[in-house]
Amino acid sequence: MEADVINPFIEATVNVLETMAQTEVRIGKPALKVGRQTWGDVTGIIGLAGYQASGNMVLSFDKSSILGIVNKMLSENFKEINDQVVDAVGEITNMISGGAKSKLSETGYFFEMAIPLMLIGKDMEMTQLTKAPIISVPFATDEGSFVLGASLTKDKEK
Amino acid sequence: MEADVINPFIEATVNVLETMAQTEVRIGKPALKVGRQTWGDVTGIIGLAGYQASGNMVLSFDKSSILGIVNKMLSENFKEINDQVVDAVGEITNMISGGAKSKLSETGYFFEMAIPLMLIGKDMEMTQLTKAPIISVPFATDEGSFVLGASLTKDKEK
Repeated sequence: MEADVINPFIEATVNVLETMAQTEVRIGKPALKVGRQTWGDVTGIIGLAGYQASGNMVLSFDKSSILGIVNKMLSENFKEINDQVVDAVGEITNMISGGAKSKLSETGYFFEMAIPLMLIGKDMEMTQLTKAPIISVPFATDEGSFVLGASLTKDKEK
Repeated sequence: MEADVINPFIEATVNVLETMAQTEVRIGKPALKVGRQTWGDVTGIIGLAGYQASGNMVLSFDKSSILGIVNKMLSENFKEINDQVVDAVGEITNMISGGAKSKLSETGYFFEMAIPLMLIGKDMEMTQLTKAPIISVPFATDEGSFVLGASLTKDKEK
């Protein structure tokens, strides 16, 4: 994964949360993901797959950040991570990877998106088969924090 | 997802485990997946994504079944789910979805595969965004059991 491949995922995260959830985010420093633990209380996963490029995108939210985002997005006042919040994590995962997909196709990375899966719970151990790096980016909102992880490899690099 | 879409995944499971791990499997009755809990001690996930069809495949092994399979596959005598066992779960997930992909392309389902992710641990809560059904199939080996789950939806059905 070339380092600049993470940028379209970061931009899409900022855009989707601003436009869909009126949520301003502060972007932390990208780093290589170390260790297996998922970061947050609820995690969206989506497979990225093409003839020529493949990988995964992961978004892991702490409870306060996702409740802040979803409550703005759906004009609700949820206090817990209920089914609607979990589904919203999947929708956000879909929208952000869709935004990144469209930007990345301009730079020669072509892929389609699988169906989002959502993991509910903290500190799950998850690892990826390939040795290709996962770049991890922390984000902060006024309500809480979340982490974006992305890995995208051209087949020749696998 | 049409019911017969599960058959190529079942056939690929039988073929891969017989040829790569000299493991005969007994196939249980396919059913709709109910509830969110992952089934086994270690679980492989792979996104399936194409312009026209998308979904996920999941394989969840109990400890005794995966140790039996991987020990035959790698001529090892592992007693615990170590990193090599976890990686082997990813490889098996890759091979089985690859076998199914190739069969399914003959019946008009075209997709590529994302990179496998592996979840380590029991009873994780995982759910899928779409309302499309996940078909779940139990398998038994002489050493233990595992469950295959697959969901594949043509875009018009989403």
